Amino acid sequence: MTKVSFEAIEWIEGMCAKVKNPEVGWRAIMKRFHNTSVKVEDVPAPASGVKVRWLITEETGAPNFAMRQFTVAPGGHTPLHTHPWEHEAFILSGAGVVVGEDGEEEISPGDVVFVPQDEEHQFRNTGEEELKFLCLIPHQEK
Amino acid sequence: MTKVSFEAIEWIEGMCAKVKNPEVGWRAIMKRFHNTSVKVEDVPAPASGVKVRWLITEETGAPNFAMRQFTVAPGGHTPLHTHPWEHEAFILSGAGVVVGEDGEEEISPGDVVFVPQDEEHQFRNTGEEELKFLCLIPHQEK
Repeated sequence: MTKVSFEAIEWIEGMCAKVKNPEVGWRAIMKRFHNTSVKVEDVPAPASGVKVRWLITEETGAPNFAMRQFTVAPGGHTPLHTHPWEHEAFILSGAGVVVGEDGEEEISPGDVVFVPQDEEHQFRNTGEEELKFLCLIPHQEK
Repeated sequence: MTKVSFEAIEWIEGMCAKVKNPEVGWRAIMKRFHNTSVKVEDVPAPASGVKVRWLITEETGAPNFAMRQFTVAPGGHTPLHTHPWEHEAFILSGAGVVVGEDGEEEISPGDVVFVPQDEEHQFRNTGEEELKFLCLIPHQEK
């Protein structure tokens, strides 16, 4: 049986994300999928107990920004760090705090968090169940 | 009692969204709020039974893209339309379908939907409770 390389599969998946449009050439197409169908990745230290799913990326066809879903285990936290891009977050489940330069605030489901670029920040799970939230960022230059 | 104009209130709110940083001048600050604290607006026809909350906008300090939360009443729908910007959506609750150029697909909580620019699309509530989803778009040029 012929083996297909991982790179080849990625290339095929990329092509399947587009259809030929006689007017505009190859174009991205609408996609719908459940978040759990996306591979989950560990976020390395200094994060603790954090996993991420990159739900929408440039590979999906998104031209401007990416949608990620984070889960933080009880007692876990994202790094306390800064970077020159903003976060737009929405809390899906669980309980915790978001730490900023002006102190910390409790977060719970239905909360919206905007973290401006260059502000030090951290998400901490202070509850007894998983903290789950969406966090969107602009694409980074490569 | 002195009346304060709507424009003045908007200006004050805008300034309260920033703090003076001696190194970088005025900067946006982190914000956390519950989605229900944002005013809800009716989406006009040809939408039907649709309301929107603009959760994160340029006024929040977001430089690149906006987070909106839509609710669609049972039997309601967003317009079947196209526009030259993408949607990144996440289904929060309820049941429905997303209509695209290649047919329609069922949507339920935890589903992710990417709608590329220029693809005709519509969200329809086919369930018996409110359909609620986040839908993010890049800022439009003014």
